[in-house]
Amino acid sequence: MSAYFPDVNKIKFEGPDSSNPLAFKHYDAKKKILGKTMADHFRFSVCYWHTFKGLGRDPFGVETIARAYDHAPSPMKAAEQTMEAAFEFFTKLGVDFWCFHDRDIAPEGSTLRESNSNLDQIVAHAKQLQSDTGIKLLWGTACLFAHPRYMSGASTNPNPEVFAHAAAQVKKALEVTHELGGAGYVFWGGREGYETLLNTNMERELDHLAQFLHMAVDYKNEIGFKGQFYIEPKPCEPTKHQYDFDAAACLAFLLNYGLENDLKFNIEANHATLAGHTFHHELEFSRVHDMLGSVDANRGDPMLGWDTDQFPLDLYDTTLCMLTLLRGDGFKTGGLNFDAKVRRQSNDPNDLFYAHIGGMDSFARGLKNAAKIIRDGRIDKLVGERYAGWDSAFGKKIENGKIGFRELEQYALEHGEPAIVSGQQELYELLLNDAIE
Amino acid sequence: MSAYFPDVNKIKFEGPDSSNPLAFKHYDAKKKILGKTMADHFRFSVCYWHTFKGLGRDPFGVETIARAYDHAPSPMKAAEQTMEAAFEFFTKLGVDFWCFHDRDIAPEGSTLRESNSNLDQIVAHAKQLQSDTGIKLLWGTACLFAHPRYMSGASTNPNPEVFAHAAAQVKKALEVTHELGGAGYVFWGGREGYETLLNTNMERELDHLAQFLHMAVDYKNEIGFKGQFYIEPKPCEPTKHQYDFDAAACLAFLLNYGLENDLKFNIEANHATLAGHTFHHELEFSRVHDMLGSVDANRGDPMLGWDTDQFPLDLYDTTLCMLTLLRGDGFKTGGLNFDAKVRRQSNDPNDLFYAHIGGMDSFARGLKNAAKIIRDGRIDKLVGERYAGWDSAFGKKIENGKIGFRELEQYALEHGEPAIVSGQQELYELLLNDAIE
Amino acid sequence: MSAYFPDVNKIKFEGPDSSNPLAFKHYDAKKKILGKTMADHFRFSVCYWHTFKGLGRDPFGVETIARAYDHAPSPMKAAEQTMEAAFEFFTKLGVDFWCFHDRDIAPEGSTLRESNSNLDQIVAHAKQLQSDTGIKLLWGTACLFAHPRYMSGASTNPNPEVFAHAAAQVKKALEVTHELGGAGYVFWGGREGYETLLNTNMERELDHLAQFLHMAVDYKNEIGFKGQFYIEPKPCEPTKHQYDFDAAACLAFLLNYGLENDLKFNIEANHATLAGHTFHHELEFSRVHDMLGSVDANRGDPMLGWDTDQFPLDLYDTTLCMLTLLRGDGFKTGGLNFDAKVRRQSNDPNDLFYAHIGGMDSFARGLKNAAKIIRDGRIDKLVGERYAGWDSAFGKKIENGKIGFRELEQYALEHGEPAIVSGQQELYELLLNDAIE
Amino acid sequence: MSAYFPDVNKIKFEGPDSSNPLAFKHYDAKKKILGKTMADHFRFSVCYWHTFKGLGRDPFGVETIARAYDHAPSPMKAAEQTMEAAFEFFTKLGVDFWCFHDRDIAPEGSTLRESNSNLDQIVAHAKQLQSDTGIKLLWGTACLFAHPRYMSGASTNPNPEVFAHAAAQVKKALEVTHELGGAGYVFWGGREGYETLLNTNMERELDHLAQFLHMAVDYKNEIGFKGQFYIEPKPCEPTKHQYDFDAAACLAFLLNYGLENDLKFNIEANHATLAGHTFHHELEFSRVHDMLGSVDANRGDPMLGWDTDQFPLDLYDTTLCMLTLLRGDGFKTGGLNFDAKVRRQSNDPNDLFYAHIGGMDSFARGLKNAAKIIRDGRIDKLVGERYAGWDSAFGKKIENGKIGFRELEQYALEHGEPAIVSGQQELYELLLNDAIE
Repeated sequence: MSAYFPDVNKIKFEGPDSSNPLAFKHYDAKKKILGKTMADHFRFSVCYWHTFKGLGRDPFGVETIARAYDHAPSPMKAAEQTMEAAFEFFTKLGVDFWCFHDRDIAPEGSTLRESNSNLDQIVAHAKQLQSDTGIKLLWGTACLFAHPRYMSGASTNPNPEVFAHAAAQVKKALEVTHELGGAGYVFWGGREGYETLLNTNMERELDHLAQFLHMAVDYKNEIGFKGQFYIEPKPCEPTKHQYDFDAAACLAFLLNYGLENDLKFNIEANHATLAGHTFHHELEFSRVHDMLGSVDANRGDPMLGWDTDQFPLDLYDTTLCMLTLLRGDGFKTGGLNFDAKVRRQSNDPNDLFYAHIGGMDSFARGLKNAAKIIRDGRIDKLVGERYAGWDSAFGKKIENGKIGFRELEQYALEHGEPAIVSGQQELYELLLNDAIE
Repeated sequence: MSAYFPDVNKIKFEGPDSSNPLAFKHYDAKKKILGKTMADHFRFSVCYWHTFKGLGRDPFGVETIARAYDHAPSPMKAAEQTMEAAFEFFTKLGVDFWCFHDRDIAPEGSTLRESNSNLDQIVAHAKQLQSDTGIKLLWGTACLFAHPRYMSGASTNPNPEVFAHAAAQVKKALEVTHELGGAGYVFWGGREGYETLLNTNMERELDHLAQFLHMAVDYKNEIGFKGQFYIEPKPCEPTKHQYDFDAAACLAFLLNYGLENDLKFNIEANHATLAGHTFHHELEFSRVHDMLGSVDANRGDPMLGWDTDQFPLDLYDTTLCMLTLLRGDGFKTGGLNFDAKVRRQSNDPNDLFYAHIGGMDSFARGLKNAAKIIRDGRIDKLVGERYAGWDSAFGKKIENGKIGFRELEQYALEHGEPAIVSGQQELYELLLNDAIE
Repeated sequence: MSAYFPDVNKIKFEGPDSSNPLAFKHYDAKKKILGKTMADHFRFSVCYWHTFKGLGRDPFGVETIARAYDHAPSPMKAAEQTMEAAFEFFTKLGVDFWCFHDRDIAPEGSTLRESNSNLDQIVAHAKQLQSDTGIKLLWGTACLFAHPRYMSGASTNPNPEVFAHAAAQVKKALEVTHELGGAGYVFWGGREGYETLLNTNMERELDHLAQFLHMAVDYKNEIGFKGQFYIEPKPCEPTKHQYDFDAAACLAFLLNYGLENDLKFNIEANHATLAGHTFHHELEFSRVHDMLGSVDANRGDPMLGWDTDQFPLDLYDTTLCMLTLLRGDGFKTGGLNFDAKVRRQSNDPNDLFYAHIGGMDSFARGLKNAAKIIRDGRIDKLVGERYAGWDSAFGKKIENGKIGFRELEQYALEHGEPAIVSGQQELYELLLNDAIE
Repeated sequence: MSAYFPDVNKIKFEGPDSSNPLAFKHYDAKKKILGKTMADHFRFSVCYWHTFKGLGRDPFGVETIARAYDHAPSPMKAAEQTMEAAFEFFTKLGVDFWCFHDRDIAPEGSTLRESNSNLDQIVAHAKQLQSDTGIKLLWGTACLFAHPRYMSGASTNPNPEVFAHAAAQVKKALEVTHELGGAGYVFWGGREGYETLLNTNMERELDHLAQFLHMAVDYKNEIGFKGQFYIEPKPCEPTKHQYDFDAAACLAFLLNYGLENDLKFNIEANHATLAGHTFHHELEFSRVHDMLGSVDANRGDPMLGWDTDQFPLDLYDTTLCMLTLLRGDGFKTGGLNFDAKVRRQSNDPNDLFYAHIGGMDSFARGLKNAAKIIRDGRIDKLVGERYAGWDSAFGKKIENGKIGFRELEQYALEHGEPAIVSGQQELYELLLNDAIE
């Protein structure tokens, strides 16, 4: 097997004083923080689509990036080489997981049968590479948005034949995810939404989306796949409006159709901000509803209105993300998948390493910062004091439904005005900054 | 009773050729459209807060508007005069409904008891005016956001004493709404959210919000109030992030806490757009989930990021709103409440009339346009054809859960690629424009 | 010459009662409004890139649209057929103008020389078709953003060799625009901006951009091209931040480098809204600075943060655009170019006709509405009264710089508080709605 | 003089290990960085309006904050006490500068004459306090937006009498700024814009704005005031659209009216982001145009569409701001003015200290980070290499205008495709993160 990244050796931890951009300064896989190794906290994953298949095309320009593994006599040979390059990259970077869409790893054939056959062949290769390297599959998924047949949606398509095609494709994707020992499977409804309400039957489309997921749950059980199902919120793009707008919209949908025990959320930072939420909000909302499954780690540009999928180097984002994860006991089946792409101008293979190293080091710093906040305890103490009234006998009576409006009116009439106590936001922010290192 | 709008007589319908800005050109209350009078389609309501209590203050400047009814020897006398001015306005404008917050109509006293007493006195006056004029209450509500005690939320306040005060206030507001024969009651969680997650226990706050609503439902039943409860989505402002972000977030919340049968939505146009949705989206989402209760009719400025509450004069908005209402069989208990305010520079009493006339005429045009679309039938026919496959035997089998992934894969393997049919968005848009008059 | 749109005949004006979506209901080319034919008011142009070269690709999916003229044994033959299809379309639609980028009409060769030769060949063909049909070129331009060499900018590239290549390409594009009798030439700096300030020398890049435009002006004069130069503002996309952010940024740039007499603006509706302005604002700003040259007629989606380039069917937009044009004496060299694309799902050739007809009819209605506003005169009268004080002797003294702060202080001390007069926004909006038909 | 902040002593530098929230951990006024003390780098200023006059009112609620200095028998006495509290605060915090609007420090009287007299009295008091403490005035300004007379603009008002009143007010504000030895004077055109273009004569309003500034320059020269004039960009709020939208719009305006040598920019972080720019962009744009005068240090919330004026605690913002300042040789007359307010819920006097300490420490860290970047030199080296071609003979010929399109075409034909070199954004971002401490 030839090397596709010959200039880069295995990335090492060299500590904060290193000036080597091809080394970790903070991420030390085996170092324990709050009793768990960094590697186990993060369960870092590299995504196949951006990192190996993304070549810099944008709506105003063609590909800018050429990869050595794409030089091949046939698409299938290129697919094999790409898989080898991917595992070389995973290994040199030192991540434990990867993620893919079916059509990322194997070319679509001229028929569904041929596509499935292509997939089987590459999956066998990937299985061998997994076995050789010990790298595991975080989750698989199916690409139900790139082919023209899905232009008006997959399970929400006005044409049931497209629903059938999508079902066939997800069936196969579930099988190969199972075959590769995937820890999960993601549903991202890229085109499950609408361009204009004028031509859309929203009610029927939502019913079909639910029907599709119920079928997927049934088939998962039938084949004995134990991986976790995730739904991934995104408000728009490519559609004008996507049904899985944000975590709350996904929760409403799942509750409405009795699917809330079958899926958790895969929260993506950039999708959160496109929906008008902070990344932290979507994580916390998911955590408190016991729906936080996995994370697509990236960042958007707050000044831009599309999914820029930049690498997650903002230390505030990584610190708050890890704080939520630590408070929620961390990942069970999920992990931090770098659903991020190098910029179109970053056409050098080394840029892939700089980007992932930057992201991993930023999360390592975020974890250390979050652990510092927890150990320091000042923020938790302030929050505890802020809500202390709810732990009183009076507060508990309300929480437990022992009293109603009549008793509360009586209480209010008797006790007069409540004290109006500072929320101390600036102090909390100062304490957060103290933790940022 | 003296006249506060002496320069304006009862606004009449003069037809489209009138150039009188103090006349209706399109709204003709008794004219029937699709079998129902315009008045019954719209159930127009004027809001008390903006129209009578809004005086042009903004974050960078003080009040610009002086109203004759505010010249009074005491706050209670001013409140009485304001109520008289309001009914004079309702009558001259020719609307059938009004809406209010408790603190709009009667001044807050130095104690809860005094506030309640003030409220009782003004409510008695309002009841008489209702009786005199035949004007009815669309819904009442309580102001749980203006007083400093609510700065950190009402039912979601970290201090249960504030919860108690809010409960007392809503209890009273329910009583007076009942007393005035209100057709509904609205919950808008103006400060039920957070400024920073750092100092917030989201889980506990959501539980308290639900507990509060359950208590309200209990009390409603106890006193025999038959009006409809509504929850009103808004993403932010005044809070950084409000729990009732949009219709989907409200649905998730209601389903999660078993409240989905007790409340419907009061959809506001400007709140929809602040949440990244079109007004039409929030209406349709509510309709297909059988949650569309009432509408706060206004519009925002798509270039501005705050609630501008402008009058609803966009004919696309009014046409699509009425199209959704016609398709959903219209209002049961709700109506079109003008939660809109004249601009700060519109400091003349006549501006209130121009604004409401503009809004009512715009909805009248919207209704005629929507009825034209329905009678014309071309859009419905196109949509029907677009989803026709789902009415086939094959489509029905999927909808009814008679087949699963195995059968669908078999179908896809056998049938090959589905046809890829135009969504014809530009044709739909052309047909919509044909209906705009 | 075979027909590429065999199902469509020349689009006719059938009047408002027609229900034929392949007819004009409002656009009647020869009908005079305020003394000028509709055709002369609008100078409608069809763009080559979206209409003939746009095939539905988006960032999440491949092409969905297949065109008959792309079936050809060679790229050059396809280019010829496309040009024939284009003129068939222009003719059937009944527009007088077209627009193109160099690389739209002829394929890029493996060398600059070959690209130029390809271009010459197709331009000769286009010239013949122009002669045959009477259709004229509104403006030409060069594509300086699609090829990888331009990934970091064209004239603002960190590499002067790319500047040279861009210069060569614009030189040629100017020549062929001149050859085709173009009424203008547009500079759109698609990648003249930055992705991150960290790697950018903004000062030097701005200097290079100005140097480039000065060279273009020199060359224009050298070859005797009399067409108008335009600069086209856009805030971002594809770049994170474009130097030509909006009309004001372009004006600052031109003034700063002494180019303000050499270029006017080509204002695009969707670019305006992406920059946080209304379309109307950018038009008015340009008009009052005597910089309004031409218009790219489309619309964006106010809920989406990217350039959706939808067809301009909003009657408020078209009315206000035409109002500005009528007040500014209309187009001299420019026109209304449909820089708009059918949606990705609109994969039928007829969709191109529906879209353009919808746009042309919307502008026809906008023109009639704007003329109605002007003839009605009520808005102009109100504005005149609003500023009447400035026409007084006192106002004139200020405007003419006859008095300063000392005299004005004296005036203010003597005269006391000015009257505070309503801005009457709601009345203006009501009058605007009265004009919308 | 009684103490208004009795619980707080002078804030000391205690170093990074201190856990005292009422101490500096990074800001050490006399510590030298790159040859200049921190105090001289920053020239920190506290603003009067938010810090002493802001009491927590927002559009949905009344004041939440009570200050001891407001308890007074008369407005003038309260104004005196407030001034004393302010200088106590400045002194305890350890800043060298303050800023104010005329109406912040002295109450508006019932006539202009009385307002002026009130102002004189308080200014005398402030002058004494300046003398007592050594604290200096960074800049003064006039409030031309809060009073109803300015509801439709000050110098851009449709009524020239309002222009006169504004002139009188600015004349006086210039005089008192001069009296207090102010280093500058700021023009923020809070309502110099429009609510709707329908009622607006943009051309005339822009002319009046320019006329006003020319008068101000004349009067400044007449009285011998040597302070720097600044214009402060903001896109909107309170107006729908402000003429001083962003730095580029201000530059266009100044160039267009020949004012570019008379004013520089006062850049505010939150105004930048409301205009769709990063704070860093507006700073860099100003720097490269030699227009960077002073900075209003705060931050907005990227998810919210209004001016939140939060304290500047984002270390990326402070680092990049200081990097631009270091590259531009720092402040001459300007400084870092905390135009920031504590949250409405932060109703404790200590919150004012936490907020300012947080901001000052964040800038101290930003300065150290920026100095580290400069000393490290890797980013500068990469940028130098990126643009190296422009320092070649060929690059210089272009920059110096020695060659034109003909020569460049010849060059391009001869040299073929330029190399396409990575922009290395991820590497730059990694290096930036390395500098964040």
